Amino acid sequence: MTGVHPLWLPDEAFRALGSRRVLVAVGPDDGPVAETVIAEVAAATRRFGGSLTTTRAQSVTAEVAQSQDVVLAIGPSVAVAGSLATRLVPRPGTPERHDPYLPAIASVLGERFTILRWTTTGPGAFQAIRVGGTTVVMADGAAGLLSGMHSLVRRGESAFTAPEGELHWDGPLNRIRMLDHWDNTVVHPVMGQVERGYAGGSIFWSEGRVRDDLARVGQYARLLGSVGINAVGLNNVNVHAAEATLLTDHVADVARLADVFRPHGIRVYLSVSFAAPLSLGGLTTADPLDPDVQRWWADAAARVYESIPDFGGFVVKADSEGQPGPFAYGRDHADGANVLARALAPFGGTVFWRAFVYDHHQDWRDRSTDRARAAYDHFTPLDGRFDDNVVLQVKYGPMDFQTREPVSPVIAAMPRTRLAVELQVTQEYTGQQQHAVYLAPQWDEILRFPIAADGRSVGYVAAGLRAGTVHHRDDPVPPSGGIVAVSNVGDDEFWTGHPLAQANLYAFARLAWGEEDPLAVLDEWIGLTFGDDPTVRSAVHAVLDDSWRTYEKYTAPLGVGFMVRPGHHYGPDVDGYEYTAWGTYHFADRDGIGVDRTRATGTGFTGQYPPPWRDVYESVETCPDELLLFFHHVPWTHVLHSGSTVIQHVYDTHADGYDDVVRMAAAWASLDGRVPEAVFDRVTERLAEQERSAREWRDQLRSAFFRRSGVPDATGRTIY
Amino acid sequence: MTGVHPLWLPDEAFRALGSRRVLVAVGPDDGPVAETVIAEVAAATRRFGGSLTTTRAQSVTAEVAQSQDVVLAIGPSVAVAGSLATRLVPRPGTPERHDPYLPAIASVLGERFTILRWTTTGPGAFQAIRVGGTTVVMADGAAGLLSGMHSLVRRGESAFTAPEGELHWDGPLNRIRMLDHWDNTVVHPVMGQVERGYAGGSIFWSEGRVRDDLARVGQYARLLGSVGINAVGLNNVNVHAAEATLLTDHVADVARLADVFRPHGIRVYLSVSFAAPLSLGGLTTADPLDPDVQRWWADAAARVYESIPDFGGFVVKADSEGQPGPFAYGRDHADGANVLARALAPFGGTVFWRAFVYDHHQDWRDRSTDRARAAYDHFTPLDGRFDDNVVLQVKYGPMDFQTREPVSPVIAAMPRTRLAVELQVTQEYTGQQQHAVYLAPQWDEILRFPIAADGRSVGYVAAGLRAGTVHHRDDPVPPSGGIVAVSNVGDDEFWTGHPLAQANLYAFARLAWGEEDPLAVLDEWIGLTFGDDPTVRSAVHAVLDDSWRTYEKYTAPLGVGFMVRPGHHYGPDVDGYEYTAWGTYHFADRDGIGVDRTRATGTGFTGQYPPPWRDVYESVETCPDELLLFFHHVPWTHVLHSGSTVIQHVYDTHADGYDDVVRMAAAWASLDGRVPEAVFDRVTERLAEQERSAREWRDQLRSAFFRRSGVPDATGRTIY
Repeated sequence: MTGVHPLWLPDEAFRALGSRRVLVAVGPDDGPVAETVIAEVAAATRRFGGSLTTTRAQSVTAEVAQSQDVVLAIGPSVAVAGSLATRLVPRPGTPERHDPYLPAIASVLGERFTILRWTTTGPGAFQAIRVGGTTVVMADGAAGLLSGMHSLVRRGESAFTAPEGELHWDGPLNRIRMLDHWDNTVVHPVMGQVERGYAGGSIFWSEGRVRDDLARVGQYARLLGSVGINAVGLNNVNVHAAEATLLTDHVADVARLADVFRPHGIRVYLSVSFAAPLSLGGLTTADPLDPDVQRWWADAAARVYESIPDFGGFVVKADSEGQPGPFAYGRDHADGANVLARALAPFGGTVFWRAFVYDHHQDWRDRSTDRARAAYDHFTPLDGRFDDNVVLQVKYGPMDFQTREPVSPVIAAMPRTRLAVELQVTQEYTGQQQHAVYLAPQWDEILRFPIAADGRSVGYVAAGLRAGTVHHRDDPVPPSGGIVAVSNVGDDEFWTGHPLAQANLYAFARLAWGEEDPLAVLDEWIGLTFGDDPTVRSAVHAVLDDSWRTYEKYTAPLGVGFMVRPGHHYGPDVDGYEYTAWGTYHFADRDGIGVDRTRATGTGFTGQYPPPWRDVYESVETCPDELLLFFHHVPWTHVLHSGSTVIQHVYDTHADGYDDVVRMAAAWASLDGRVPEAVFDRVTERLAEQERSAREWRDQLRSAFFRRSGVPDATGRTIY
Repeated sequence: MTGVHPLWLPDEAFRALGSRRVLVAVGPDDGPVAETVIAEVAAATRRFGGSLTTTRAQSVTAEVAQSQDVVLAIGPSVAVAGSLATRLVPRPGTPERHDPYLPAIASVLGERFTILRWTTTGPGAFQAIRVGGTTVVMADGAAGLLSGMHSLVRRGESAFTAPEGELHWDGPLNRIRMLDHWDNTVVHPVMGQVERGYAGGSIFWSEGRVRDDLARVGQYARLLGSVGINAVGLNNVNVHAAEATLLTDHVADVARLADVFRPHGIRVYLSVSFAAPLSLGGLTTADPLDPDVQRWWADAAARVYESIPDFGGFVVKADSEGQPGPFAYGRDHADGANVLARALAPFGGTVFWRAFVYDHHQDWRDRSTDRARAAYDHFTPLDGRFDDNVVLQVKYGPMDFQTREPVSPVIAAMPRTRLAVELQVTQEYTGQQQHAVYLAPQWDEILRFPIAADGRSVGYVAAGLRAGTVHHRDDPVPPSGGIVAVSNVGDDEFWTGHPLAQANLYAFARLAWGEEDPLAVLDEWIGLTFGDDPTVRSAVHAVLDDSWRTYEKYTAPLGVGFMVRPGHHYGPDVDGYEYTAWGTYHFADRDGIGVDRTRATGTGFTGQYPPPWRDVYESVETCPDELLLFFHHVPWTHVLHSGSTVIQHVYDTHADGYDDVVRMAAAWASLDGRVPEAVFDRVTERLAEQERSAREWRDQLRSAFFRRSGVPDATGRTIY
């Protein structure tokens, strides 16, 4: 592949591995992912002068291993290490950070080993250890071997020079690590080819069919596989007529994509239309309780699996923003999801059923209706009624991927349902890949947030972990979920429009895997992408580290969202969504601003949270400043915990945010000549647009709020 | 043609003429328009049992004439009547309504004749008289004969039963009576096929080429010809790459359309790109003073005239909203227009050069820049520098086709330039053919407005008439202009989306011709379209008569415009254009609203008007209420001439406007069964949308202005 950016897998990233003697020990039945490991090592060693030997895992004796610099092995050789993995350990970073099992494991390993990290077992898990000068990666299966190999790649020379006996034990926290593409197979007249896409057209589709040349999809699959993504949704959740036929007439197209993703450990999913039995099947109903409808879905699924035996399943947006759903037949969403789930169950498929259901024909005059309440009101009564192969896909917040929202109370309210938390890598409301916004700090805050009454974090709940329990590998699989996000990739030469938005794609995968420090992940990404120049490293950190908070400063004060242009969602428009049917208001008038969502005097949304949040958010005294206007309507002169007033906070943060952007641009400008020219130019161009846009945000919001409040800026800065 | 609505030419409209003995007296050289008259009479008499005889005009003796019911004649037989037409009479309705020539004419005609009407001579003029039981229409040429015939059609039975000796003397006030189509040959990804079109796709173009089947264009040409339209612009003034090639590669397509329009007395025009020498000609410049550029335009024009000997000329939007223009080369718009004019001059072609030039990258922070000033500032220094075959096409107001604007001061400021006033039949800002808005009362107000220092009206100036002068037919043609409008027609079955929007197309043509009473024109249209049912007549009047003022009530208080959604321009958005680069602001804050355009304290725009308007508008004391906020920024509690306050006026008119719409819908509902079902249903559906939308306008504007002003509605009506 030429002409497109290599993202975090430039050839150079393989130097340390590729310059060594590498033994890959896999069996004949280890499948295409194992072949991928062999191919990667072959290519790397060819390029950098190392060597590749392949053998069966059973043949790896200590002598054989010691004749190599690196051993990558599946199978019995890892049995001992594997036995350590019988317990599922709570995720560090949650309130249950303490771990009662550490002493026991340490006693088995003895003093020779230092536990660097641990996490869950399951597909993708591996162990790495330095023994007698050899770096050994052991895994139960090919997915783990691929993860382990890429772990070495990421660690570079340090993976081969670490002290003897350090055990690097890694595995995915989340079973589900999925990217959804909102790609249309044909260009939509309003939404374009990729809905909410800011990086060109679809890499999958062209003019209604799969692309002839899938080389780029292959590169994408390799990139995702390298960071543990294991599921990809191939088409937009808004399923138009052309895309609906992927399920029937064009399964062969889907199969071609599945063939490309399979060697990288990734299963493919289709977004389907709930009305497919009508629109494609010629039935007179799509009622999920109708036997003909059930049969139609079962037959449709069976035909897909004939072509794609490891097909992942369906993604469904039903009864949402105009998409059809079970409500039309007087059925609920458990009925709807289960009919699809039962069609997929014989083949091991899964339904991702989105909880993004609300009234998008709301009357703005009616202040009692609250869109924030909708998902909870619709879905919590259904807890326990979804089949085991249904995953309820819940947006992280109750609204819609805003820069700042509280986390969705649904996450804490459905203990008997598999949940996946949905994030948005594509920057719909966060600068559309014109603005440099590193989103991992936001995701980290979300995932760490102790939403549950028992104190478990969002990430903990999403991973399907239960408070105070341990899970043995021989137990039935728990109702585990994971993390899903909307991809930010298109056919742009940098994949993501803004080259620095590549960091979001990378970081999403790493956080979904279980990594916890967004700045460490960023640092890792910088090294892989830009190499080891410390000037570059520090400048990219200067641009990105605080960029999400910077973006929040100039766009979303105190939890107010949606001050964007309706439709395209870019750029400021204070009242753009104020009088619409979308349920997205701030109620700013000459006296104050904010939405009263209290139980006492407002919509009662606070009551959807478990303690302590139902009370924390209920009171202006305890509500965090950054969410104050999400939960309360207050006067402009209300004094925040920060000591500032609401109106002065607006004035200050919008001015400060713009100043931050100026500093970001200056930091990047210092890299002229130190990063590839094409990258430098593209980022420079985007930062100029960000600066222009941030200035608009600053001046428009300051002016609009001044015109309303009449309160001058205490600092005397110009208000236009 | 089946399946589309016949507009104002249903077969039934021809009954009175078609049931009579008709003699058409034309010569062999009278051309295709005369053939059209013969064909129309032939079809009508065939349908309704009359007879058609054709002869040469010279052969029409009194005896021949008296053997017929109707004589339609070109040539010597009208010499006497023609001799009456040697003087150009000021247009009634202007301040010079008095006419010193009436006594002289009356003395020639004697007591036998009653002057029913007069106007200019020139192509299209005719005389009709009842003599000895025969209705005689006489014209100098075929265009006049066509006009005369359609005049009989419109008058129906009364044309043949009028008293003996009444002379009906008619001719077009304006030489230019033009409809511009903003049609793209290919569908534009944002603007669609017809920019600002609300009636489906283009009737001319499909997928980049002229349509194969031009039957519908033929019907359109016939309809326009029947009401005196004599020029049609075939493509969007925003000329994209595909449309630019009409001038070169696809002249044959244009010629096919010219062939269709020609028999109806209509010449076709192309919108061209000023950058065509670069983009099409491969030159390195489009500098109008470059000899290669001049040669390129001359060659291009010559090639067009090879295919279309009566090609009308070019329409140009230059240096406007991203279109290329002479500014790029340091040249002014006279330089730009004249290079095209000189290319067309040898062939009798005309350039329509749009005065819609302004900075669309304005900084909203800068209150000293005023878009309203732009056309005047750009063009008045050029007065006298445009070639004779350049017509400066000036939008009626200084902004952009708003529901309410003052008339453009440019109209009074370019005495040595041919001017055409541009109206907008397509309802871009006036309800987009979802709302029933009969625009002729607005146009009538505009045309009657005594803009000039010498008191001449806009219509008088546009027609090229000078104050206090008379013009002999042997004098050189004065620098005459006319009226241009953007068409509202598309491939919709009713042509205009909203069936009642047909009235606007009809009325535009009739007002461009010189008719003066918009409600009489409406009445005429109702009769032709719906027949003679008095219930229908009165209900359609009830819907349309005041509909423009109703629309103003709920959308555009006191001269504030642009409170629409940016981009598509439909529906309310109080601040939608407030912080944009488009120069379209109202500056509403908690204290007041409006734009200070005075000389004393504002942008000085009032100074562009001649007396008395420069002073009338300058003072809040004398500025008319309906334009108050266009010219002044005043407190919410400012008291209007009406006695109400600004804020109460907003509250009242928005509530009243909605109530008007409810009444309009009720009036229409009474026609169920009295008008064709398809028309009834479509109008009913549109009125429902109008009612919904008017309610939004009412409630959003009342709420938004209350939130800002804090002043309660004195009537106590609900504000949400």
